[in-house]
Amino acid sequence: MRIECIAIGTELLTTRRLDTNSVWLGERLAGLGLAFHRKTAVGDSREDLGEAFREALKRSDLILTTGGLGPTFDDFTKELFAEILHADLVEDAASRADMLAFYAARNRVPPQVNFKQALIPVGAEPLRNPVGTAPGVWWQDPPGHPGVRIVMMPGVPREMKTMWEGQVEPRLRSLAGRPVHTLRMVVCGVPESNLDERTREVRERHGHLDWTILANLTQVELLARGPEPRALESARLDFEPVLGEDLASVGDGNLEDAILGRLKARGETLAVAESMSGGLLASRLTAIPGASAAFLGGATAYTMAAKAALLGLDPAWLAQVGTVSEPCAVAMAEAARQRLGATWALAIAGNAGPGAEGGAPVGAVFIALAGPAGTQVRAPKMAGDRAEIQLRSAAQALDLLRRSLGNG
Amino acid sequence: MRIECIAIGTELLTTRRLDTNSVWLGERLAGLGLAFHRKTAVGDSREDLGEAFREALKRSDLILTTGGLGPTFDDFTKELFAEILHADLVEDAASRADMLAFYAARNRVPPQVNFKQALIPVGAEPLRNPVGTAPGVWWQDPPGHPGVRIVMMPGVPREMKTMWEGQVEPRLRSLAGRPVHTLRMVVCGVPESNLDERTREVRERHGHLDWTILANLTQVELLARGPEPRALESARLDFEPVLGEDLASVGDGNLEDAILGRLKARGETLAVAESMSGGLLASRLTAIPGASAAFLGGATAYTMAAKAALLGLDPAWLAQVGTVSEPCAVAMAEAARQRLGATWALAIAGNAGPGAEGGAPVGAVFIALAGPAGTQVRAPKMAGDRAEIQLRSAAQALDLLRRSLGNG
Repeated sequence: MRIECIAIGTELLTTRRLDTNSVWLGERLAGLGLAFHRKTAVGDSREDLGEAFREALKRSDLILTTGGLGPTFDDFTKELFAEILHADLVEDAASRADMLAFYAARNRVPPQVNFKQALIPVGAEPLRNPVGTAPGVWWQDPPGHPGVRIVMMPGVPREMKTMWEGQVEPRLRSLAGRPVHTLRMVVCGVPESNLDERTREVRERHGHLDWTILANLTQVELLARGPEPRALESARLDFEPVLGEDLASVGDGNLEDAILGRLKARGETLAVAESMSGGLLASRLTAIPGASAAFLGGATAYTMAAKAALLGLDPAWLAQVGTVSEPCAVAMAEAARQRLGATWALAIAGNAGPGAEGGAPVGAVFIALAGPAGTQVRAPKMAGDRAEIQLRSAAQALDLLRRSLGNG
Repeated sequence: MRIECIAIGTELLTTRRLDTNSVWLGERLAGLGLAFHRKTAVGDSREDLGEAFREALKRSDLILTTGGLGPTFDDFTKELFAEILHADLVEDAASRADMLAFYAARNRVPPQVNFKQALIPVGAEPLRNPVGTAPGVWWQDPPGHPGVRIVMMPGVPREMKTMWEGQVEPRLRSLAGRPVHTLRMVVCGVPESNLDERTREVRERHGHLDWTILANLTQVELLARGPEPRALESARLDFEPVLGEDLASVGDGNLEDAILGRLKARGETLAVAESMSGGLLASRLTAIPGASAAFLGGATAYTMAAKAALLGLDPAWLAQVGTVSEPCAVAMAEAARQRLGATWALAIAGNAGPGAEGGAPVGAVFIALAGPAGTQVRAPKMAGDRAEIQLRSAAQALDLLRRSLGNG
C-alpha cells in the first residue's frame, strides 16, 4: 500500500511552525506495519494544494491530509478535494449538532462562519471531533478512484491524534500488514560517531533489522525495527554489554523517565536548585505523569537574592566565590537536599549568555549532585547558543544522577 | 520564481526526526523576498526521490535539496540527479583535497568509500563544505532545463546552514525579489474564530498584505507580509484599537518577552511559585536573554513538603484547604512575593493529571497574582492532556500578569 501525507498550511512554508503531525502519523503507521513513501507540505493555496492532491491521487492508495478544515477563509481542503473529484458537499446533521454542543458546553454560540465545518462530500463519511469543532473526513473509493482512501484530519495536533486513534486507525487495521516493532535505546554522554563505531559489529550481527542512529543535542537514539519481537529482544541483550552504563533507557522513555523509575524503585527522592537552567530541570521531571512520587521540587534561584531567600546562601560569601562557580553549585545542591529533605539534589550554576557574567565566560557550567555519600561536581565547557547551553546542562545533570543511581 | 525543497532521508518518514532544515531555509528565503511553494520529504529510495525530482524539474525554477550526499550506500542524490539529467560525474580535485585535509586535521585517513563525495556532475559547480566532508552542488541550467537551478546541500543542519550562508545565499541574492517584511502580532486569551471575525474588516482594509492566522495551544499569531514596511506599520496602527489589551506583543517576541520588557521599563521584579506547572513558568521566562534584570526566580513547590520548606506554608493548614485550591495558590504567590522581595509574584496550583488529587479533578487550576495592590485569582477549568494543561496554565498565568502590567 502506497501511503502519503499532505500537510496543509502556509505557516508550514513560511514560519517556524514544524510539521509534527506527520512525524506522529509515521510512528503510528509503523505500528500497523505501514510506512509513508512521501510527505508533502503545501501552503493555503488552491493551486498548490490542488496540484499535490491530483498527483497523490495518481500514485497513492492512502492519502492522509492534515489542516485546512477550520472555519476561516484560508481553510478549504474539503471544498477543493470535492471540486477536483466532482462531488457535492452536504451538511452532516450530527457534525452540526456536535458543534452546537461543543459551544453550548462553553456557554457560547458558534459564529455563523463555523457551520461550513459541518459540510461533508457526498459519498464520504464524517469523522467526529470530540475535542474540537472541525470534523474530519473518511472518503473511500471516491468518484473515479476505486481502491483509494482519502483521510482528511484537522491540523491541530490534539484533534488530529484523537481522531486518528478513535476512528482512523481502527478503519485501517484491516488493511495493515504485519506490525513492525521498534527497539529504541537511548544513549547519553557519547558522541554519535563513537557510538556508530562501537556498535557496528553488533548491528551487523543483527543486520536483518532496520537500523537508524538519530543524534540530537542531548542524546543519541539507536532504533531497530523488525516484525519479530524476539529478534529485537535478542538484539537488546547483545547491545547491553556493549553500551554498558552509557545506555540511559530502553523503550519509549527518556532520561527523566529512567531516573524517576529508579528513584521510585529505591524509595528515594530528588530536589533541584537551578540557576542558569532556570526551571528546565524541574519542568523536564514534572512533565512525567506521577513525578511527585519521587520529585519533591526545588528552587529556581536565578538571582543572588533568590539564592539567599530560597536556599539560605550567604550573599557576602556568594559575592566572594562568584555565582558561576563550583562552590556555588555545591552549596546550592547541598542546601536544596537539606531544606527539602531529599535523598539527592541536583544543582546547576552557569552562564548561558548572552554576555560574560561576573568573570565567568559564556558556556561555563557547574553541575553538582549532592547525595548520601557526598557531593560530586562536573564542570563542562559548553559551546552553542543560550537554549543549547541550557538544554545540554539540564541533560548532563540528569545523566550524572542516572549514572549515580546505577541500574539498581 | 517557483521554489521547492526536497528533504531526503528515510528517518524523516519513519522516526521522530523533524525536518528543521526546510523551516530554517524558509525563513532565509523570506529575507530575500522569496518563498517555498512546496516542501517534500522522501526516503532513501531511488524510485521515490527520482519521481519527486522529475516533478520538481517540471514545475519549479529553484530546487533545494538536503541530504543524501554522504559516503554510504543510501546516499545517492548526486548520482541519481546526474543520471536523470544524462550528465556524467567527474571528480572535483578541490573537493578531494578538502576531504583529505579534513581527515588529516583529525589524524585520520578517509575510508575509500568517502571519495565518491568528491564527484560532481559535469557542468555543475561544487559547494565547499568547511565544516564536514560532503561538498554540495550548485547546478545552473542543467541539460534540457535552461533557467532551472538545482542546489544540493548536506542534511546535517550545521553543514547545510554554513553552506547556505557562505555560498548559496550570495548566489541567489541577484535573483531575489524585493525583500518581504513581516508584521507579527501575538494575541492571548482569545479563541481563533473570535479573532478571525473581530479582525476581518481590518484585514480586508489591508487586503494587499498576505494574512495568516496561526493558532496554537496558548496564543494566536496574526501575520501580515508585504514588501512595504510603511503598509505594515499602517496595518499595525489600525489593529491596535481592534485588539485592545488582547494584543500581547508585536514583533518577534512572545508573552514572556512582553512581560520582561514591561517589568524592566517599570523597574519592577517578578517571582514565581509553581506547583502543577513544575518549573515551566520559570523556564519560559529564563529562556529570554537578560531575564535576570526582572525575573528573580522562584520555588517549584511540587510537594507539600516543598511548599513548607521553600515557601514557609503550614502543612496542617495546607492539608485543611487542599493543595489544589484557591487559598493555596494565593498563599504561594504571597509567600513568593514576600520571600523574594518581588513587586509581583505568580503562583500556579492545579491538577494536570493523570488522576484526581486530594479531591481536585484533572483540569482544576488556580492561578494567583500577588502585586502591590493585592492578589488576584483565576480558576479556569482546563481540558486536555498533562502537557497541554501545564502549558496553558503557564500561558494564562503570564497573560494575567501582562494584562495587569498594561502597556505602560
